[in-house]
Amino acid sequence: MRIRLTPRETSFYDLFASSASNLVTGSKLLLELLGADVAARAEIADRMRAAEHAGDEFTHAIFHQLNSSFITPFDREDIYALASSLDDIMDFMEEAVDLTVLYEVESLPKGVEQQIEVLARAAELTAAAMPNLRTMDNLTEYWIEVNRLENQADQIHRKLLARLFSGEYEAIEVLKLKQIVDVLEEAADAFEHVANTVETIAVKES
Amino acid sequence: MRIRLTPRETSFYDLFASSASNLVTGSKLLLELLGADVAARAEIADRMRAAEHAGDEFTHAIFHQLNSSFITPFDREDIYALASSLDDIMDFMEEAVDLTVLYEVESLPKGVEQQIEVLARAAELTAAAMPNLRTMDNLTEYWIEVNRLENQADQIHRKLLARLFSGEYEAIEVLKLKQIVDVLEEAADAFEHVANTVETIAVKES
Amino acid sequence: MRIRLTPRETSFYDLFASSASNLVTGSKLLLELLGADVAARAEIADRMRAAEHAGDEFTHAIFHQLNSSFITPFDREDIYALASSLDDIMDFMEEAVDLTVLYEVESLPKGVEQQIEVLARAAELTAAAMPNLRTMDNLTEYWIEVNRLENQADQIHRKLLARLFSGEYEAIEVLKLKQIVDVLEEAADAFEHVANTVETIAVKES
Repeated sequence: MRIRLTPRETSFYDLFASSASNLVTGSKLLLELLGADVAARAEIADRMRAAEHAGDEFTHAIFHQLNSSFITPFDREDIYALASSLDDIMDFMEEAVDLTVLYEVESLPKGVEQQIEVLARAAELTAAAMPNLRTMDNLTEYWIEVNRLENQADQIHRKLLARLFSGEYEAIEVLKLKQIVDVLEEAADAFEHVANTVETIAVKES
Repeated sequence: MRIRLTPRETSFYDLFASSASNLVTGSKLLLELLGADVAARAEIADRMRAAEHAGDEFTHAIFHQLNSSFITPFDREDIYALASSLDDIMDFMEEAVDLTVLYEVESLPKGVEQQIEVLARAAELTAAAMPNLRTMDNLTEYWIEVNRLENQADQIHRKLLARLFSGEYEAIEVLKLKQIVDVLEEAADAFEHVANTVETIAVKES
Repeated sequence: MRIRLTPRETSFYDLFASSASNLVTGSKLLLELLGADVAARAEIADRMRAAEHAGDEFTHAIFHQLNSSFITPFDREDIYALASSLDDIMDFMEEAVDLTVLYEVESLPKGVEQQIEVLARAAELTAAAMPNLRTMDNLTEYWIEVNRLENQADQIHRKLLARLFSGEYEAIEVLKLKQIVDVLEEAADAFEHVANTVETIAVKES
């Protein structure tokens, strides 16, 4: 145990808000991907990569702040978990776009647009909730709604897999598409991790 | 750090015991699944979903207790890890049943019954061990045996994959069945996580 | 909270060094695997299994030391994370060899040798870095380089998947090979986890 200075510990809130806002950017790029032709996809992938790099900067700033602060607004493990899960979401979003380009996917299967709409809604809710960590107001509705969205995403994902396995697609195409829909499902799971961490923080404060 | 009241911290033991007993219920449903026709499978899936919801209640009660208690019988991170791993096991069991129904699997490959028997044995051992957390008696045998079972599950799983890839099955069927045997393997891994956490707790107490 | 004796807490350094050196052994066995015929592969698998058992011993010794020490050279969670990630790497390496034998893979696809070269380089860097945990010297270059290697591994992995999905391979063969290249990618990720934990430790010390 050693003494840590706390020059700017309040900026945790700002960093979490920036990290979550960046996910709204990411989910909008996923929505763009749905209707994009091959040329447009490459350009979307570039912008997604830039967004992911921006996310890395926020995550790194949070970790640096965490490691150099003696007093933190919440338990250290909760700050770590929150930053990591926010970072994971962006990584999964970026991977979905990159794989779509890399595998030269003809068209994403019906149901992916539902997955992405759920992610976009979860991103908006998460970005709106982060500033409320200061006051702990209105967080209950946020985490109930994100948990509901994750259950919905899970149902959409399982139906998508059933469709992929229905015989409509060639085996190799199934493998490509499965990896993309799986990574989008991982993004939905990671939104729930964020919400569960926020719940943990809120219960400790109450 | 803030003061937390501890109205009922001893009930951690009861909650862990209930959560583990619920896994015995889950593993019995998996055993029923083996011989079930399509109609029976749907009904088993309903009961599995109910068991999983019951498990969620125990997990949530443990987290709530953890977050609202100032003094806990073990280190907080160990309680969290134990509750999470118990919850994971039920989720994996439920997913295995749900995917079998959803993918309209004709018949599960030979070897799955061995996977499920190992899970059933691990569930019984885990349910028997939880009450012993109070006294720390007889835990060594439990975790040695669960680690042995996990190694056995790992061997069964790898042989199952080799069978799936042997050319006996169509590629799409391989994909469906692989996902089911993989999720059963994840359940076996999660039993080992539970045992490792119990070992950690016991060593700290010794 | 209870008092723990610390008869030999300094040996954490030796145990981490031994665990990391063992990964160099593992990565050399992976390099041998590349050019091996079927008979040689079985023998390599035996030696890899022995290396994995040796790794388990180091991991277990670290956990035992951690649970029985009152004072530790770094935060307990960092020691736990470091030992676990080192152990994970060996497990992934062993799995890659075992699956190659079990699936009777004709030949590993072009690009796997690049994956393994990255792992071998990461293992050397990790083994060289562990003794520096005593003095915290020269760790910055280590983790920057391992992060760079992980990005490189990620690119190699994605290109390998694109090759597997290009139509050159039968679907079942794709499934086998994908599992092997995925587990090698997991090993690369785990090297990054080790480096990130070392970074966390170093920042706290600075």
